[in-house]
Amino acid sequence: MAGNTYGENFKITTFGESHGAAVGVIIDGVTPGVEIDEAYIQIQMDRRKPGQSSVTSPRKEYDIVHILSGVFEGKTTGTPLFVMLHNTDMRPDAYNDIQHAFRPGHADFTYLQKYGIRDHRGSGRASGRETAARVAGGAVARKLLERRGVQVLAYTREIGGIQCQTFQEEIIEQNAVRACDPIAAAEMIKKIEHLASIGDSCGGIVECRIRGVVPGLGEPVFDKLDAELAKAMLSIGAVKGIEFGEGFTAAAMLGSEHNDAMSSSGFLSNHSGGIIGGISTGQEIVFRIAVKPTSSISATQQTINVKGEEQLIKTEGRHDPCICPRIVPVVEAMACLVLEDHYKRQAAMHN
Amino acid sequence: MAGNTYGENFKITTFGESHGAAVGVIIDGVTPGVEIDEAYIQIQMDRRKPGQSSVTSPRKEYDIVHILSGVFEGKTTGTPLFVMLHNTDMRPDAYNDIQHAFRPGHADFTYLQKYGIRDHRGSGRASGRETAARVAGGAVARKLLERRGVQVLAYTREIGGIQCQTFQEEIIEQNAVRACDPIAAAEMIKKIEHLASIGDSCGGIVECRIRGVVPGLGEPVFDKLDAELAKAMLSIGAVKGIEFGEGFTAAAMLGSEHNDAMSSSGFLSNHSGGIIGGISTGQEIVFRIAVKPTSSISATQQTINVKGEEQLIKTEGRHDPCICPRIVPVVEAMACLVLEDHYKRQAAMHN
Amino acid sequence: MAGNTYGENFKITTFGESHGAAVGVIIDGVTPGVEIDEAYIQIQMDRRKPGQSSVTSPRKEYDIVHILSGVFEGKTTGTPLFVMLHNTDMRPDAYNDIQHAFRPGHADFTYLQKYGIRDHRGSGRASGRETAARVAGGAVARKLLERRGVQVLAYTREIGGIQCQTFQEEIIEQNAVRACDPIAAAEMIKKIEHLASIGDSCGGIVECRIRGVVPGLGEPVFDKLDAELAKAMLSIGAVKGIEFGEGFTAAAMLGSEHNDAMSSSGFLSNHSGGIIGGISTGQEIVFRIAVKPTSSISATQQTINVKGEEQLIKTEGRHDPCICPRIVPVVEAMACLVLEDHYKRQAAMHN
Amino acid sequence: MAGNTYGENFKITTFGESHGAAVGVIIDGVTPGVEIDEAYIQIQMDRRKPGQSSVTSPRKEYDIVHILSGVFEGKTTGTPLFVMLHNTDMRPDAYNDIQHAFRPGHADFTYLQKYGIRDHRGSGRASGRETAARVAGGAVARKLLERRGVQVLAYTREIGGIQCQTFQEEIIEQNAVRACDPIAAAEMIKKIEHLASIGDSCGGIVECRIRGVVPGLGEPVFDKLDAELAKAMLSIGAVKGIEFGEGFTAAAMLGSEHNDAMSSSGFLSNHSGGIIGGISTGQEIVFRIAVKPTSSISATQQTINVKGEEQLIKTEGRHDPCICPRIVPVVEAMACLVLEDHYKRQAAMHN
Repeated sequence: MAGNTYGENFKITTFGESHGAAVGVIIDGVTPGVEIDEAYIQIQMDRRKPGQSSVTSPRKEYDIVHILSGVFEGKTTGTPLFVMLHNTDMRPDAYNDIQHAFRPGHADFTYLQKYGIRDHRGSGRASGRETAARVAGGAVARKLLERRGVQVLAYTREIGGIQCQTFQEEIIEQNAVRACDPIAAAEMIKKIEHLASIGDSCGGIVECRIRGVVPGLGEPVFDKLDAELAKAMLSIGAVKGIEFGEGFTAAAMLGSEHNDAMSSSGFLSNHSGGIIGGISTGQEIVFRIAVKPTSSISATQQTINVKGEEQLIKTEGRHDPCICPRIVPVVEAMACLVLEDHYKRQAAMHN
Repeated sequence: MAGNTYGENFKITTFGESHGAAVGVIIDGVTPGVEIDEAYIQIQMDRRKPGQSSVTSPRKEYDIVHILSGVFEGKTTGTPLFVMLHNTDMRPDAYNDIQHAFRPGHADFTYLQKYGIRDHRGSGRASGRETAARVAGGAVARKLLERRGVQVLAYTREIGGIQCQTFQEEIIEQNAVRACDPIAAAEMIKKIEHLASIGDSCGGIVECRIRGVVPGLGEPVFDKLDAELAKAMLSIGAVKGIEFGEGFTAAAMLGSEHNDAMSSSGFLSNHSGGIIGGISTGQEIVFRIAVKPTSSISATQQTINVKGEEQLIKTEGRHDPCICPRIVPVVEAMACLVLEDHYKRQAAMHN
Repeated sequence: MAGNTYGENFKITTFGESHGAAVGVIIDGVTPGVEIDEAYIQIQMDRRKPGQSSVTSPRKEYDIVHILSGVFEGKTTGTPLFVMLHNTDMRPDAYNDIQHAFRPGHADFTYLQKYGIRDHRGSGRASGRETAARVAGGAVARKLLERRGVQVLAYTREIGGIQCQTFQEEIIEQNAVRACDPIAAAEMIKKIEHLASIGDSCGGIVECRIRGVVPGLGEPVFDKLDAELAKAMLSIGAVKGIEFGEGFTAAAMLGSEHNDAMSSSGFLSNHSGGIIGGISTGQEIVFRIAVKPTSSISATQQTINVKGEEQLIKTEGRHDPCICPRIVPVVEAMACLVLEDHYKRQAAMHN
Repeated sequence: MAGNTYGENFKITTFGESHGAAVGVIIDGVTPGVEIDEAYIQIQMDRRKPGQSSVTSPRKEYDIVHILSGVFEGKTTGTPLFVMLHNTDMRPDAYNDIQHAFRPGHADFTYLQKYGIRDHRGSGRASGRETAARVAGGAVARKLLERRGVQVLAYTREIGGIQCQTFQEEIIEQNAVRACDPIAAAEMIKKIEHLASIGDSCGGIVECRIRGVVPGLGEPVFDKLDAELAKAMLSIGAVKGIEFGEGFTAAAMLGSEHNDAMSSSGFLSNHSGGIIGGISTGQEIVFRIAVKPTSSISATQQTINVKGEEQLIKTEGRHDPCICPRIVPVVEAMACLVLEDHYKRQAAMHN
């Protein structure tokens, strides 16, 4: 319980269900005197919102940013910044058919087991809609990180088995799947459109690179920087795994291969992914996350209802056949939150 | 800073360096009235201690358990349980050669960057020795979980590229590498012995299965059960990745393949690894972690000293050529801590 | 920083400034399946709102309760409950005169020192308006405590030197100052009206009695029940002191007088105020708080401006000449939050 | 549960019972590179230890400080500092008589209610012995505060109804009761000796002054500096109340009297006690705590046993007839912990 807060010195607390009135976030611990406005946050919201392209959910949420506290005359005051996002395109009735049955791959069953009660409208709190509040909070963290020269960049590495072969940073925001390889991107889009047409879905891999982080960030023992990033990423709905640097490949490497040697001009390799002993090395931080295929598919599936009786189910609604494109800004937001919090923890220690 | 505490309602706080006087743990939030004694905790300590076999470090630490508070007449009192483990085989002088240089793959560089000061004796706080305190804390959590019928089992799945082909639970504690396949185990041991003879090291994959967990455990949004497990596992020194259920394989699956259908007798598959929406399904929880090759190798490597001057380095000392066998009880300990904490959080919500 | 959250297992996070758009609260850790509606919370809001009588601020805030998440079909879902209260009677321009000067007794100076920036409109975040969010959160805690048979009752004991001589519980909500003695109440009202007429203010003492708490609630060592209540009460703006049971009188008592003897039918006295060793005894919990005179007075006072230059100041605005009547529901709200949190902590320990 | 940790960015976690093997403290979040040694901490331990004079308990605890981690070559490393204090003068058998009965004024009854089990030896965890660990932790905080120019000074203001009439700082540590008036001190000592001779005890008032704190320290809303100090003080066993500045006297003052006016050379008075709106003003912080008479008296008292049967009880043992002299260093320790934590929180916000 009480798991709706993230961070220690820089902290967000979120609320809101998929088909309720609004989602929102209280951001506490904001450095005072920093210029920020709704337009800045809106940029990130627009990257996450549904309906951006043919490969995302057609739900129409404009996610207009409303800052209701914590900013005065264009600057942060140090008091909690509250951002609210009204839900505008709710269709709770669309879910009446499934209110008594558990959609496979969804949290319907587990929520009911946990709480003994369930808001069935569009997954309620388990909906990806909840991540809108994270992105708003992450945008404020991003603003603070800009002052530190930190840049957080996520993008699609693989979708439906199609892997990027090149890394072209400039094209990431230019294609609908946010992939780093234009040829792979085109294939991915075709694949997603095909799967959507047959009522199926697919997963993928999203990669994140963080640049400009000072060496020395991260807390041993339990709050290692990679441990915190892992928690932050696995807290995003569809994420099933994370790896840093060589990741699972490291399992088959030798120490003499994996160790990053050093010269007077710095590290000679970055197998570690920019974090050693839970602390940043000053190199690029690199990690990848595994994104499962969207659970909501319109194919007929076998399930049970709340009485335990077997039945067939088709999940209607307006879903993303692959969540990777829209998870990218959420990954960045969570990474920003972790980093700003750790910068503040570091400041606390040394001051 | 202040990152040496883990958990909310069941909480451990640890201290101790590799070549200091002792390591220890304060365990807070222990259910009162539960029978526990030093012998019970000792069993887990013995699984983690060095010197168990030809494939582990020859350092001799007996890790004798001393409970100094929180137990009265054989039962927990509800007040903090303190366990101390004296370091007995310290050889701080063995590290004099490397006190001014950074060992590749080690946290030497990052600790100095973070703190501006470094206890160079055997990695100080960054040493795997720190995990002894975790195992002691985890043993207490394990005791509480036994009363709930929860069983946590970790084992080696892969070492040095050699993968287990079978799962034979009964042989795990019978072989030096704690693998689940006796044939693979024999090969792994041979490989490790060879690498040790040439001064190199290797990594591997450790798998964990958790049985008997009630459905409904785990906290949305940020404190999802898999997110917490991910943090707990990535907080262990050599771990570079984690995946649940199908994990990274899920990235290339279709929704129609990955979704776990349900029948009146329960789930028909467990692609999710026992957790959906961050909450336990009641199935077996399954995850795997990637363990990097041990950083300490005696081969000559290129590095720099604290002045930034290039030099060659050979890491002497008594190290594990592969940490998988000894990481197994640490993985179990951390999983126990996460689970007991979440059981208590669940109780808090419903009471 | 990040001090806008209260509680561990039952947790509120608030936002909002005096003359901003709204104040609000996210309540996390709510037991699921409990019936609650806006009307229930509104009752408490109405007790706190300004403009109730001749002795309170004439500001007109209706504080209409809007629940925007966490309740589904009239019952709590276990997910965060969000309550928003729009500010309707803001007059930020009324504060233009004082935007560059520090009002004596106000947090104007300290906020500017802390943040380097200040929202001068009606004290911003330092305004008593912030407590509206607490009362909304406390109302949800009160609902949960009702199921436990716990009753929290606060009232005015003394105002402007006039002390209650009797304790008549039934008249507390019948008089404008919420005193427990009708004769004293009448005198208090007269005194406040007189002070208001000459532009001055006064303080008082508010007492709180909590009934029906089980014995055994509260956490040694640092989170003693009285310690948590003390923090909760001192966190309310105008409170300058707290005492439990005999309180400061105990300083002049003998052990033989102060110790509460026991008979087979229970304690024979309650000098301790219902808490011993930080844990509830099962008796009535009794504490009193000292409330300072309202800082906002219209008499001319000596102060400085932000440049450090001396000037005279008159605080205009619509203020309470004595805050006791309106602090009563805030005291109850905070006590409810502390108690519900401790009940949940107790459940976590024993389950 | 899990209430044995104090602080956020500077954090202590303690363990240990009165008649167990040891008490100890893990101090996390210590600024690295600061010179500290056992002798520095020992000074504070010696001020708290029993057996200092005719007016304190004759129990002989030398409380020899052992630092077992977190210090390397005389300097803090930033990793957890662990201090252990062995119990040397345990006489658990002295408590056999009272193991089945509840001593009036003691936590015997409440602990049993809370935990269902009780370590009866000398109050177990509820003993004042627990504060030894706090003083060790506080000494480390004090060291860090010295670098900030902060000075924390507590002393006895009143004992057994005898009040100090003068404030002579230099004599505080020169008299056995740590009073600030030598004439009152002599009377207090006489009174305590008399009460000890007849098997009774008395309470008193301890005052604390904190100098050199920057303006701007403390967190609105819930973590106000006075709220945190109140919690810290009320968490000390025998404390029944706290007041800041004018405290309870403020309840009968007018706003025009209580407001601290400002001139170009600063505040013209300090009725607020150095904290306004929960944030330090830069003036001296002043608070007083009410200390109840020691519960342990050798006079015969009426009580019940664990079966609920009435009986008479005489509390033998070696107790302080008035705890004020020995509570002084504990008050200072807790104040140091609160302040260092808040300095670190402030640094986190602005960096």
